[in-house]
Amino acid sequence: MERESGIHSSRLRNRLHEIIFEADTPAGKMFDIGLIFCILGSVLVVMLDSVAAINAQCGRIFYVLEWFFTILFSIEYLLRIYSVKKPYYYMTSFYGIVDVLAITPTYLSLVIPGSQYLLVIRLLRVLRIFRVLKFTQYIGEAGQLTRALRASRRKITLFLFVVLTAVVIMGSCMYIIEGGKNGFTSIPKSIYWAIVTITTVGYGDIAPKTTLGEALAALIMIMGYSIIAVPTGIVSAEMTHLRIKISTQACPVCSAEGHDSDAGYCKFCGGKL
Amino acid sequence: MERESGIHSSRLRNRLHEIIFEADTPAGKMFDIGLIFCILGSVLVVMLDSVAAINAQCGRIFYVLEWFFTILFSIEYLLRIYSVKKPYYYMTSFYGIVDVLAITPTYLSLVIPGSQYLLVIRLLRVLRIFRVLKFTQYIGEAGQLTRALRASRRKITLFLFVVLTAVVIMGSCMYIIEGGKNGFTSIPKSIYWAIVTITTVGYGDIAPKTTLGEALAALIMIMGYSIIAVPTGIVSAEMTHLRIKISTQACPVCSAEGHDSDAGYCKFCGGKL
Amino acid sequence: MERESGIHSSRLRNRLHEIIFEADTPAGKMFDIGLIFCILGSVLVVMLDSVAAINAQCGRIFYVLEWFFTILFSIEYLLRIYSVKKPYYYMTSFYGIVDVLAITPTYLSLVIPGSQYLLVIRLLRVLRIFRVLKFTQYIGEAGQLTRALRASRRKITLFLFVVLTAVVIMGSCMYIIEGGKNGFTSIPKSIYWAIVTITTVGYGDIAPKTTLGEALAALIMIMGYSIIAVPTGIVSAEMTHLRIKISTQACPVCSAEGHDSDAGYCKFCGGKL
Amino acid sequence: MERESGIHSSRLRNRLHEIIFEADTPAGKMFDIGLIFCILGSVLVVMLDSVAAINAQCGRIFYVLEWFFTILFSIEYLLRIYSVKKPYYYMTSFYGIVDVLAITPTYLSLVIPGSQYLLVIRLLRVLRIFRVLKFTQYIGEAGQLTRALRASRRKITLFLFVVLTAVVIMGSCMYIIEGGKNGFTSIPKSIYWAIVTITTVGYGDIAPKTTLGEALAALIMIMGYSIIAVPTGIVSAEMTHLRIKISTQACPVCSAEGHDSDAGYCKFCGGKL
Repeated sequence: MERESGIHSSRLRNRLHEIIFEADTPAGKMFDIGLIFCILGSVLVVMLDSVAAINAQCGRIFYVLEWFFTILFSIEYLLRIYSVKKPYYYMTSFYGIVDVLAITPTYLSLVIPGSQYLLVIRLLRVLRIFRVLKFTQYIGEAGQLTRALRASRRKITLFLFVVLTAVVIMGSCMYIIEGGKNGFTSIPKSIYWAIVTITTVGYGDIAPKTTLGEALAALIMIMGYSIIAVPTGIVSAEMTHLRIKISTQACPVCSAEGHDSDAGYCKFCGGKL
Repeated sequence: MERESGIHSSRLRNRLHEIIFEADTPAGKMFDIGLIFCILGSVLVVMLDSVAAINAQCGRIFYVLEWFFTILFSIEYLLRIYSVKKPYYYMTSFYGIVDVLAITPTYLSLVIPGSQYLLVIRLLRVLRIFRVLKFTQYIGEAGQLTRALRASRRKITLFLFVVLTAVVIMGSCMYIIEGGKNGFTSIPKSIYWAIVTITTVGYGDIAPKTTLGEALAALIMIMGYSIIAVPTGIVSAEMTHLRIKISTQACPVCSAEGHDSDAGYCKFCGGKL
Repeated sequence: MERESGIHSSRLRNRLHEIIFEADTPAGKMFDIGLIFCILGSVLVVMLDSVAAINAQCGRIFYVLEWFFTILFSIEYLLRIYSVKKPYYYMTSFYGIVDVLAITPTYLSLVIPGSQYLLVIRLLRVLRIFRVLKFTQYIGEAGQLTRALRASRRKITLFLFVVLTAVVIMGSCMYIIEGGKNGFTSIPKSIYWAIVTITTVGYGDIAPKTTLGEALAALIMIMGYSIIAVPTGIVSAEMTHLRIKISTQACPVCSAEGHDSDAGYCKFCGGKL
Repeated sequence: MERESGIHSSRLRNRLHEIIFEADTPAGKMFDIGLIFCILGSVLVVMLDSVAAINAQCGRIFYVLEWFFTILFSIEYLLRIYSVKKPYYYMTSFYGIVDVLAITPTYLSLVIPGSQYLLVIRLLRVLRIFRVLKFTQYIGEAGQLTRALRASRRKITLFLFVVLTAVVIMGSCMYIIEGGKNGFTSIPKSIYWAIVTITTVGYGDIAPKTTLGEALAALIMIMGYSIIAVPTGIVSAEMTHLRIKISTQACPVCSAEGHDSDAGYCKFCGGKL
């Protein structure tokens, strides 16, 4: 009897796993699509809830909906733990952590009011959408992007390090040149201004007033305008390299090289590679 | 007699079709050039009409000109339907829809005042200009651009998805950190601010005031400044790939495409190109 | 006697031509360097002259200096016409026109006060600096840049055309949505705002106030942020193509292809190309 | 006895040199890590010291810490001079100069108050961090970046020259068009505005008010938006070139470089690589 119920529970688990974790079966796909609509809906509720005018009208409904979605996602989370074979593995995975973070703020808002706005982190759960869409294609493209970014990781680190050093030193110079009366009230504030300037954002809430300050600011701008070419060049080179993918295979017949990595035959003599 | 008039009308139709739809004959070219000047003229009228100082002076003339152009384009539209062989096909094509949209606002302005400014959509009709210029060359270039963009479609979608997710989450964080008193009055408004910042536009109408807010803003700026390298890299790689390997030759054996311009044999099946 | 003076004048002309137009002889080089310092000096005078505080002090000196440089450049211009073999050819060339434009504003300022500030156009004369520096190297680099830009001319035209159409239509939509009370006082002003936004400049003197306006603005920003990838991709592809310069030459010994255009020997078998 | 002390001092020197200048031995690595923490700590102290609110509270502690770090770095600098074999060579090297600059401001602040904020230049000393991290890898990457930038040096110079000329001429035009009453108070100020605009920073502290000014500003923006493609294209092409053809092999016969990574023979003289 116990064993039978064990088999029964095992079957239930498998069925649940199929529906919740996979997107190939009709039931699994329907579940995923439903889930995505629930997530988008709950994020929309949180966003509209923060608009004073709408909150005054529908605050009550939003409050109920928020708890409805939170309880729904809590149940889903428990079912995921129940149905998966290695719960610990799931719970410490990226999606597992996001799933917990997506329900915590509502419970937290009982203690700390205002924290429910953190619920927008639920949006990260929508990343599951790529499972429903032609999954493998997007994974392939994402893989290419990730590979290109990983390959240029060190160059980007170096670049950011140089930019940050420049920003700290130039921000401090501006603090000395312009001083507190022109809005550069402290070095951290001046560094913030330098970042606003070098990234070409340029809010204009703080702007140099003295001639020397304007000259230095102009220098930072031209620097920021020019050096954007560096990370762009790095990523472009990496992507082009991946896109052209020059194979080092030589043709066994005519020994010509330069074949694409997907080539099966020599493009010069037609010999099999 | 009836048949004769049928032949007559058929001839007229062909002649009209030649003038209106084609740009190879002198008459067709003249028609197209005249049309483009009319379109530009009518768009200019709409634009100047919106300037209060000019409107006060020439409002009357503009009103007459607007109706003149609208009736002209209406007649042209009817002639197009009359002369084309498959009117339905034309009416549902891109140009057909634009042609209707280009005359509707004037009629609509009788019911809803102010809608006449939508007439600037007429500018889309000017896209016909590429027919008059060395048509095929531009089409080829446009084709290259479109192909490169289509090939990087999925990567760009992924990129925009990640950017939008980041913008929503970071906007919400700023809403919690800065709050309504510093201009971040709601989550949608904060998301708007995050988009203004990550795209490096930086109006400055809303700007962080607290230290923590400025730190997060600096993070978003550096992020926006760095990740612009990603779409640029994607499109560069695709364009470079197209530029270096331009052959559009299809294999006569397996009809595969994407061969290098120096290829003599199909790289997939070894067949002679 | 007359003939002798003719020979004499011809020799003088040649000598003058050598000094003024060439940069290879020591005298010619010295002349060019002196000229560049005069140009930079005169531009500096014009710039400082416009600063009220400095003008109050040194206005008199600046006035004298301005006329000194203008008369100097006028004499130089006359000498150039005198010494060159085909004066008409020189006068209608780029440098000839710039040389006239560089002296006209001072004379013009006698009639129209304020026009002397146009003298900064003298800066264009400094382009001659590349003759003094290692001339041919820079010409080669400039040639590469120009070739890449010329090759992508049509694609850039197409791109700008699409951007301008988008800017006109979106600017008009913003005019209808936001209206004059939020700063969008006319369609041309709204188009100006759309250009400020799509190029990610973002002054913030005009900014949307309504929710719908902010949504459309966000769209324009993301558009502007993404499509910058297109011209960048076009120029990158063209430059990469030029930089890699894949020759279509095949090795006569091993018939391998893919040699650089500067290669003299096959990189695979060492055979002479 | 004297000789023995000589040997002793020589041993001490070698030991010191090993600890201070090298990062391979455990002692050397520990020294470097300790040093980096000291540098970051002292920079943090300088930055926080400039914040009025924190200064009021901890000004006393910061003052002591600043002198503590300065004396520590002074001792370190003396030890470096003592332990290195060629003190003059070290003192005139990049790091030697930075090391002096990193301690001077504190002593200088006794004479000129406020100059202690220049201490952030200490951050440059953190560049030593790359010695502690997997040194050679980063050096390789930095080398690639530097080579790409050096190869495109002349093109970038040309580009910046053209941009600066455009900025000076367009700034002057704006000064004439807009005049002092709209914020364009002098040509240098107008040039500053033109730089703010062409780099797409766009503070908005100065903005055109007249229609003609707005039209010219729109032109500068579109120019700035488009020409960013040029430096990006230059660096991308250079990086792609380096990425695809990475071989740094020199020909043993003619010692030419720049061979493809798949080359077996020198492309210039045909010699075996």
